[in-house]
Amino acid sequence: MKDVKDYIRTIPDFPQPGIQFRDITTVIQDADGLQLAIDSMCDKVSDLEYDVIAGAESRGFVFGAPMAYKAHKPFVLIRKKGKLPGKTISQSYDLEYGSTEIEMHVDSFEKGARVLIVDDLIATGGTTEAMIKLVEKLGGIVAGVCVLIELPDLKGREKIAGYRLDSIVSFEGE
Amino acid sequence: MKDVKDYIRTIPDFPQPGIQFRDITTVIQDADGLQLAIDSMCDKVSDLEYDVIAGAESRGFVFGAPMAYKAHKPFVLIRKKGKLPGKTISQSYDLEYGSTEIEMHVDSFEKGARVLIVDDLIATGGTTEAMIKLVEKLGGIVAGVCVLIELPDLKGREKIAGYRLDSIVSFEGE
Repeated sequence: MKDVKDYIRTIPDFPQPGIQFRDITTVIQDADGLQLAIDSMCDKVSDLEYDVIAGAESRGFVFGAPMAYKAHKPFVLIRKKGKLPGKTISQSYDLEYGSTEIEMHVDSFEKGARVLIVDDLIATGGTTEAMIKLVEKLGGIVAGVCVLIELPDLKGREKIAGYRLDSIVSFEGE
Repeated sequence: MKDVKDYIRTIPDFPQPGIQFRDITTVIQDADGLQLAIDSMCDKVSDLEYDVIAGAESRGFVFGAPMAYKAHKPFVLIRKKGKLPGKTISQSYDLEYGSTEIEMHVDSFEKGARVLIVDDLIATGGTTEAMIKLVEKLGGIVAGVCVLIELPDLKGREKIAGYRLDSIVSFEGE
């Protein structure tokens, strides 16, 4: 039987020289790959108590929405600034050059809701940390973070120490 | 029982004055709303023969990915220019001011594959028409287009005449 990792394609030097880009499109453009990815992520968090799944624009939507559908949970969007039409709160964070902002609708969930954050990948953890801050700013409790791919060399897990992190596939020293 | 339409929130004057924005976040942030939306879209196309679902960045991902998961079909991404890491083909189209480009990976599907295009909404049909052209450029056969929301006043259906279009909710003269 194939492993999720077998479906991931590595593209060298994208988006810039020296980066080995882990491409999830080859996972999801295979019916079995998509099934396996979503089921594996849901299984990983099956012992976790959570009320809501929050997904990050836009590859986080690809995994978070089917997980929410399967688990019969609400799905809320974390988007780049200016994309959400209602009243939002935002969180800025630093990029390699400059900074950026992510937002959620203020009515995304009730205060005290247990939120599972879903994304395709964790690298340095900068975006993940910003999502955690955003959820907490809105009064949510971060139940955990679930990603398909973890790049341990970039120490994202350390950046969000204290929070539960589940990943399905790990690329270490590659 | 609630209808999908009951879950949609209307936000006046977004993104610009005079536009009644139909907000799907209130559909998906309700577990039953998400379930109902995905199941309704899948039911609408249950008689359709298709091999692949293609979803448009980024709200199309929210509906297309769970549909593909449920129907056990491959899911391929249609993204804005420069976002996909592999070799792509692109299609440009006009916006109100200027133009934009969308892309797919060249290996998204086999030549002759029957493709179901999924998005959250069809308005004037400009983006939908560009997605159809993109799929056909890659040798795919457009089996149909399925959206959650149709705005008939903007005549998107006429723009893509000759292609099957299924929608779940319609806002006419509102």
